[in-house]
Amino acid sequence: MHSSSTLRRETAKTKLLNAALSVLRTKGYSATTVDDLCAAAGVTKGAFFHHFVSKEALAVAAVNYWSEVTGALFAAAPYHAHKDPLDRVLAYIDFRAQLLSGEVAEFTCLAGTMVQETYDCSPAIRAACEASISGHAATLEADLAAAIEAYGLRDVSAASLALHTQAVLQGAFILAKAKGGPQIAGESVGHLRNYFSLLFKST
Amino acid sequence: MHSSSTLRRETAKTKLLNAALSVLRTKGYSATTVDDLCAAAGVTKGAFFHHFVSKEALAVAAVNYWSEVTGALFAAAPYHAHKDPLDRVLAYIDFRAQLLSGEVAEFTCLAGTMVQETYDCSPAIRAACEASISGHAATLEADLAAAIEAYGLRDVSAASLALHTQAVLQGAFILAKAKGGPQIAGESVGHLRNYFSLLFKST
Repeated sequence: MHSSSTLRRETAKTKLLNAALSVLRTKGYSATTVDDLCAAAGVTKGAFFHHFVSKEALAVAAVNYWSEVTGALFAAAPYHAHKDPLDRVLAYIDFRAQLLSGEVAEFTCLAGTMVQETYDCSPAIRAACEASISGHAATLEADLAAAIEAYGLRDVSAASLALHTQAVLQGAFILAKAKGGPQIAGESVGHLRNYFSLLFKST
Repeated sequence: MHSSSTLRRETAKTKLLNAALSVLRTKGYSATTVDDLCAAAGVTKGAFFHHFVSKEALAVAAVNYWSEVTGALFAAAPYHAHKDPLDRVLAYIDFRAQLLSGEVAEFTCLAGTMVQETYDCSPAIRAACEASISGHAATLEADLAAAIEAYGLRDVSAASLALHTQAVLQGAFILAKAKGGPQIAGESVGHLRNYFSLLFKST
């Protein structure tokens, strides 16, 4: 059982993490201040530093929280239900296309956004972003390996194809940011789907 | 003819622009200060503000300078020499793969890096980055249109394929930043090449 003061602390922490997902995807890491995060979360600076020793520590926790939240979303998504492993992979890509809607900050990736700025200055944030992107890619490997086996593909690895899906998505998000909307990102995700269709039918 | 004082001013401006290409690709836009740029360029703050009214103005000029410098590099590259338009496109992709070496800041894209952080806060930088990425993509459209015609492809546009090449490259750069080196980026560029090979041979 939690005391009411523990509950308050947990609530402030979760508020800060949820605020971080939104503010960091909108402004990026460097431009975001602790004050921005406290204001967006509706918590005091005292509460911030009770939970996190620094903005960098909050950013690392936010990426790990992002991995958890998105991990649950993808684990519960319907693409896993298809019988054929290639159908599961293509349905994953279709699911990613469906997520491309609304404001740019709402459909783009926290890990890809933050690693772009911090890869050279924060080993801890870079490592958290790498774990988030590679960890999500790894959830596709079993289906890709089964599809490679089922369709008799040679000279291609499930790990490489899985990471390529994330490269295309991350690049699609950059084009969406440049062009101010999701349409261009949807086109690249469509090309990714077409590549996988052609690749597995090419045997 | 330039007076020696005009030459000094041009030199300081060019030094600042060259320093910006390196510093902004390493630290990102928000984390970079005017002092960082002056120190890297070896010029005074007075010289900076003689040429640029703000860090944002320098960033816009740096993206436009980046478009010029990289535009000249690609215009002079050997991939244009192939007779077959698909060979020109595939040789462009091979050329991009060859450029993936050295330090991450040396082979990644200024426009893609900056738009990631600034798309929401600086319309001027976003527009310059969009023009840089889309302008480079447009240099591929004639070859892609000729290849689409020559190979009888349907339901695909040269503009969409051209932008997709840039999405894959931008995403490959993000994976390179996450993983700390060019190898993973080369794998995604290889998948892009394979997609184009399969797509044009699928007719």
